[in-house]
Amino acid sequence: MANCLVAQSGGPTSVINATVAGIVKANQLNPIYDTVYGGLHGVEGILSEMFVDLTDMSDFENKVLRQTPSSALGSCRYKLLRENEEDFKRLFEIFAKYDIRTVFYTGGNDSMDTVYALTQYAEKNNLEGFQFVGCPKTVDNDLMVMDHSPGYASAAKFIATTAYQTWLDSTVYTRQDVFILEAMGRDAGWLAASACASGIVDVLVLPEQPFDKENFLKVVKKHVDEKNKCYIVVSEGVRYEDGTYLSAQESKNDTFGHAVLGGSGAALRDMILDAGISERAKVQDLSNAQRSHATEQSKVDVEESFNLGMSAHMRSVDPSFTGKTVILNRVEGDDYDVVYSATDSSNIANHVKHFPTEWILPDYAGITDEALAYIEPLLVGIPEIIYDEKGLPVHVTPYYMRNK
Amino acid sequence: MANCLVAQSGGPTSVINATVAGIVKANQLNPIYDTVYGGLHGVEGILSEMFVDLTDMSDFENKVLRQTPSSALGSCRYKLLRENEEDFKRLFEIFAKYDIRTVFYTGGNDSMDTVYALTQYAEKNNLEGFQFVGCPKTVDNDLMVMDHSPGYASAAKFIATTAYQTWLDSTVYTRQDVFILEAMGRDAGWLAASACASGIVDVLVLPEQPFDKENFLKVVKKHVDEKNKCYIVVSEGVRYEDGTYLSAQESKNDTFGHAVLGGSGAALRDMILDAGISERAKVQDLSNAQRSHATEQSKVDVEESFNLGMSAHMRSVDPSFTGKTVILNRVEGDDYDVVYSATDSSNIANHVKHFPTEWILPDYAGITDEALAYIEPLLVGIPEIIYDEKGLPVHVTPYYMRNK
Repeated sequence: MANCLVAQSGGPTSVINATVAGIVKANQLNPIYDTVYGGLHGVEGILSEMFVDLTDMSDFENKVLRQTPSSALGSCRYKLLRENEEDFKRLFEIFAKYDIRTVFYTGGNDSMDTVYALTQYAEKNNLEGFQFVGCPKTVDNDLMVMDHSPGYASAAKFIATTAYQTWLDSTVYTRQDVFILEAMGRDAGWLAASACASGIVDVLVLPEQPFDKENFLKVVKKHVDEKNKCYIVVSEGVRYEDGTYLSAQESKNDTFGHAVLGGSGAALRDMILDAGISERAKVQDLSNAQRSHATEQSKVDVEESFNLGMSAHMRSVDPSFTGKTVILNRVEGDDYDVVYSATDSSNIANHVKHFPTEWILPDYAGITDEALAYIEPLLVGIPEIIYDEKGLPVHVTPYYMRNK
Repeated sequence: MANCLVAQSGGPTSVINATVAGIVKANQLNPIYDTVYGGLHGVEGILSEMFVDLTDMSDFENKVLRQTPSSALGSCRYKLLRENEEDFKRLFEIFAKYDIRTVFYTGGNDSMDTVYALTQYAEKNNLEGFQFVGCPKTVDNDLMVMDHSPGYASAAKFIATTAYQTWLDSTVYTRQDVFILEAMGRDAGWLAASACASGIVDVLVLPEQPFDKENFLKVVKKHVDEKNKCYIVVSEGVRYEDGTYLSAQESKNDTFGHAVLGGSGAALRDMILDAGISERAKVQDLSNAQRSHATEQSKVDVEESFNLGMSAHMRSVDPSFTGKTVILNRVEGDDYDVVYSATDSSNIANHVKHFPTEWILPDYAGITDEALAYIEPLLVGIPEIIYDEKGLPVHVTPYYMRNK
């Protein structure tokens, strides 16, 4: 027998830990690995042999892990570059040292590229007996090949709920009021679009369409003229026709070359105030809370993320199962259901699935019924959350903070 | 028999509607009023006779109302000025026209002044047979005489939960990270302080203490030097020794002469970046979500708010019960419990209860155990929330939006 390693990478979600919980639970049901190592801080920590032993996690901890947001094993934005062979050499030495046969790596499209790169390196160098398995997650819902990305639904649910609740809040006075909710979404508008499940969004601005300031202001003015109010939802990554971000003054690049965004809501507010359309405009940027607010997870999302971890572990019994990412797709029919399968990680690596432009209504009027029919079943159900005696949700202490 | 009127004023909370639900339910249990009118948009709408009939609200609607945040009757920031006798004259004409004997008014210290002013006007002008009863609410927890303000606990719970969850999110990378959570609180630090119930706050900056930039930066630097991270919570209303707000450039005055704040978090971020203490600092302003996130109400808070509505109705059987605000105070003992009573509304009007400075630890280190022992019992319990088939919480359509 040999061991396995599970690690997390990329931005956290509310349910990414459920996938780890699924892998650990699967190995307890069928212990094909002697030890389930948790690698701390993704590739970055693995390179420093930062491991914890998750093998004998109690059932209670497993349950609490599922309701703990963020990455309990820590994350990284370290880019494993193919030209940097030293990193690969070192990683395979460490895998050998710890007798690690299978590496489960949870993350988004960058992380799926890491899985692909490790598989390519092993093939090229005839390193046999290693398996690399990707488990998808991202609140952005921009992963290819699968129906939706684990983590999206819980963030979407928080956004839709908060949209409705802040809309109630923003309408109580008779005075003129424009409220702008800013959601994450660098290139894809899935998160902002999910606010439409609340049924109250007047104006929706997505990155999939070049921003037309004149038309936007016209539409906002129409709402304000008609009812003295306007509720706007905007993605952080909205751009003008020429590619400039609304919040251009603030954009920097992260280590993956992606622009670090924020401030599209403030940009819209300033536009509206400058144009004299409303005397008041308030912005709420949901920021990190939207991806870590695990007390309102979608039950569908937690269960699917857990199942993907189980599925990844179970499929890894087959030694030829490498360079693969486990995925899920929706079954046709009246009742929502999914089937689990696997695809080459290269199909997901570095691609982006945009919000379909045919699902976007003209004049910033929101999304089509088809789009709503896609989103709504994902939001269903509330997991039974375990609270402590203070009334706050119980979360596991992150593994990267233990023994410190 | 005569009728009663219930109206809401000031900023919304997650549980202010529970007080209305309590008044309506009490009148169903003991119908001392023929009709329970809901006055829309507080005094402002009452002056325009904007009334709805709440008398026969179904039990289901009553339950859903309790889990609906914001002010379902609409709110106002209209200031009833004592010198403006026309307003008072008009109001009493309307009360007479609708045979309204008792006015229940929910709100903060400004609204309790409205109750006081109406009572004074009736006395001065020998207008008999009218009763004015205040029901307290404010997320700010700054109302005098009572142990805590209804509405505070639910906001505090959301803040403490979100603090823990965004702290998990902000620590996943090995890189340097400073995270700043901004809470509401113009003059009182209760909301920001409640984040400490999460146990993770490194640095707490409250308006009760003049801001000392040098010491603040020293403390932040110490945390960053020690562990590469620092989690900061700040009230919107923090000021320098000379009274200038941290976010001074943005402050305007509202109709009550209060400064409209926002941006203390951004001000701290800029300070930290300018001083070169950290390369990264992210701000999350909880904005309106903190007072309207009703899906995580404190059960204690909902029940108390409902009970205060019931108590107000029941006490109004006594015709001499006017110019009063119903309040609650904590019973001494190991188990948390409260007693309900009443006080003159003038005792609450226009006063502010600050967070006790003796509960603030030096060097921005948070709050004392005594303070935590005060806050924690308020957060206990999660109400059973009713969800729709989409998985989103059910809320009542605001009464001010019906028939439009």
